[in-house]
Amino acid sequence: MLQDDVQLISVDDHIIEHPQVWRDRMPAALKERCPQVIETEAGMEWTFDGHRSSTIGLNAVAGKPWEERNIDPARYEDMRRGCYDVHARVADMDIDGVQAQLCFPDFPGFAGRRFIKAPDKALALECVRAWNDYVLDEWCGSAPDRFIPLVIAPLWDVDASVAEVERTIAKGARALSFPERPDGLGLPSLFTTAWEPLLDLVASAGVPLCMHFGTGGALELGPDRPLGVRWAVGAQRSMTAATEMLFGPMFIRHPQLKVALSEGGIGWIPYILERADYVWERHRFYEKVNDVKPSELFADHIYGCFIADEAGLRDRYAIGIEQIMWEGDYPHADSNFPHSRKTVTEELADIPDHEAAMIAELNARRLFHFERAS
Amino acid sequence: MLQDDVQLISVDDHIIEHPQVWRDRMPAALKERCPQVIETEAGMEWTFDGHRSSTIGLNAVAGKPWEERNIDPARYEDMRRGCYDVHARVADMDIDGVQAQLCFPDFPGFAGRRFIKAPDKALALECVRAWNDYVLDEWCGSAPDRFIPLVIAPLWDVDASVAEVERTIAKGARALSFPERPDGLGLPSLFTTAWEPLLDLVASAGVPLCMHFGTGGALELGPDRPLGVRWAVGAQRSMTAATEMLFGPMFIRHPQLKVALSEGGIGWIPYILERADYVWERHRFYEKVNDVKPSELFADHIYGCFIADEAGLRDRYAIGIEQIMWEGDYPHADSNFPHSRKTVTEELADIPDHEAAMIAELNARRLFHFERAS
Repeated sequence: MLQDDVQLISVDDHIIEHPQVWRDRMPAALKERCPQVIETEAGMEWTFDGHRSSTIGLNAVAGKPWEERNIDPARYEDMRRGCYDVHARVADMDIDGVQAQLCFPDFPGFAGRRFIKAPDKALALECVRAWNDYVLDEWCGSAPDRFIPLVIAPLWDVDASVAEVERTIAKGARALSFPERPDGLGLPSLFTTAWEPLLDLVASAGVPLCMHFGTGGALELGPDRPLGVRWAVGAQRSMTAATEMLFGPMFIRHPQLKVALSEGGIGWIPYILERADYVWERHRFYEKVNDVKPSELFADHIYGCFIADEAGLRDRYAIGIEQIMWEGDYPHADSNFPHSRKTVTEELADIPDHEAAMIAELNARRLFHFERAS
Repeated sequence: MLQDDVQLISVDDHIIEHPQVWRDRMPAALKERCPQVIETEAGMEWTFDGHRSSTIGLNAVAGKPWEERNIDPARYEDMRRGCYDVHARVADMDIDGVQAQLCFPDFPGFAGRRFIKAPDKALALECVRAWNDYVLDEWCGSAPDRFIPLVIAPLWDVDASVAEVERTIAKGARALSFPERPDGLGLPSLFTTAWEPLLDLVASAGVPLCMHFGTGGALELGPDRPLGVRWAVGAQRSMTAATEMLFGPMFIRHPQLKVALSEGGIGWIPYILERADYVWERHRFYEKVNDVKPSELFADHIYGCFIADEAGLRDRYAIGIEQIMWEGDYPHADSNFPHSRKTVTEELADIPDHEAAMIAELNARRLFHFERAS
């Protein structure tokens, strides 16, 4: 059971950037081309480099009754203030019983995909740097014991990524958002050596890669599927990414590297570890495969993350009790705000106290080197 | 524990067609264009309508030591005779401790994809009919109590499919191989009404759809992935297909329809049922979704199938003890031939006798209306 003295840490939440995030930080020459918010007949939209880009705060629905939810709040005033205002966010975390969050970007895409796709890379680099400064200085800096700082990188350029990750680590970054399948974004795959300098850096610095599901390209689903299918099967991306990493060279080359499968769920992990080992036992004789069993690599490198997942918690020893972390997903529809603490407590009711503490707090503190304030 | 009087039934094995399967059965005018085996410098290959099509018996490796296995036995004499000779197959089943098998096609593709893709549909229809006659008359007909007859259909034409399934049911067919994602093959999706006449027929006749993983198009994996990744994550196709069916209209319209997720594994099912219900509870207010919970539809309609799956067996009540069936996968590399009975017995060692009997025999007999010979 979750004890009262456990501080609940969530390793997957979302920031909805306010309109001044880039305007306040970009070099003067690029200010007019940076992401900014305009008014349209439909509400508010982001523009970037002269192009209308997206609605604001897709699925930022925290606090609304289920029946009134949809996928496109169109104005900031339609959202809870905690979506985009850090002080309101901390107040909502207090209501929700959450001590700390690790927050992903919204407009940039979970791993900065929008900037990876932008044609002007000088502009895109400044946008990445501005978001990182915003999240480190304004967001996390406002309440350092309440946020685990996660940054993005200019992933189209590995050397520039190394420079930006070094710069942000010096400012306190504790995690890097990275696509679960970089070649889905037109970048080199994790089976190449292209990422070695960046992986060397994050492995030696103890900075985990957070691979949020859906960062490696969209699910291939037919156009006639309900959105529910897309939300329900998103974990297949995390499942495939985990399997690829377990058969690939990444963890062999980087024994210190850690990966979190953000919003990937955990109930499928016992299945895929058993299956990967079964395949490894049978098929490794006619192709070059690692000498280490997939399940052994998993135990040393991968963390599963869940919002609500009784199946995974029932079979938690097959995942690894030190490798499970909880997520709040504020302000998206999967969140249980303002009842996160109550919901987690119910999910962990039958689990021994020390295991509940590991899942709710201690595993995240250890992985992200995020100590309790004394 | 699996008791000695339980007859082991496998719901997923594979036939490697012998060279005369089509030549012996096609109308004279089409005989030269039907699938036939030629000798090449590399070994034996199938040709179809004048085009070289594929090697023979991909991954038909039963009985070989692990270290000598690869993915392309190139000649019939390199395979066990049981791959293509029904009498040798029955002898191998006796060695393996397997009472009955449900066998999928090899050259046609699991659901007849090669004929779906063929440009000459008159030729393709005759090829489908010839394979069905072969499997019903020669293969299953040689030992009716040892094989559950599964047929394919000319799925590019729903009316022709209805006619062929009616024809084959009259000859004893008990299952229809159907793609888990027909639009992956360029056919209408299961979210359309195109399949209604065929689904009406199979539902009312008590003929389950067997959806073998990989029949709805290949996994989208990068070209640099080891084959092991492909073998290990194949279940993501079954997971997605199951979720689509649970959010779609098919089971609402056809309360009697049953689906088996062939070679899909079962360990991921508790996770996806919980996840699908979670999404259904939250997202059904802004789009048209079924009034019935996904997990309730699963309980009435879908069967999970496994070769070796301790994770799924541990959590078997979350799947449904009546909805789990075993598979042998002879003669592919996942098979445990000649130790299938021993392996299943070990996997079911901690499971109550009556549950082990359901999983090993009774569920398959009930689903496929395949009674014990008296």
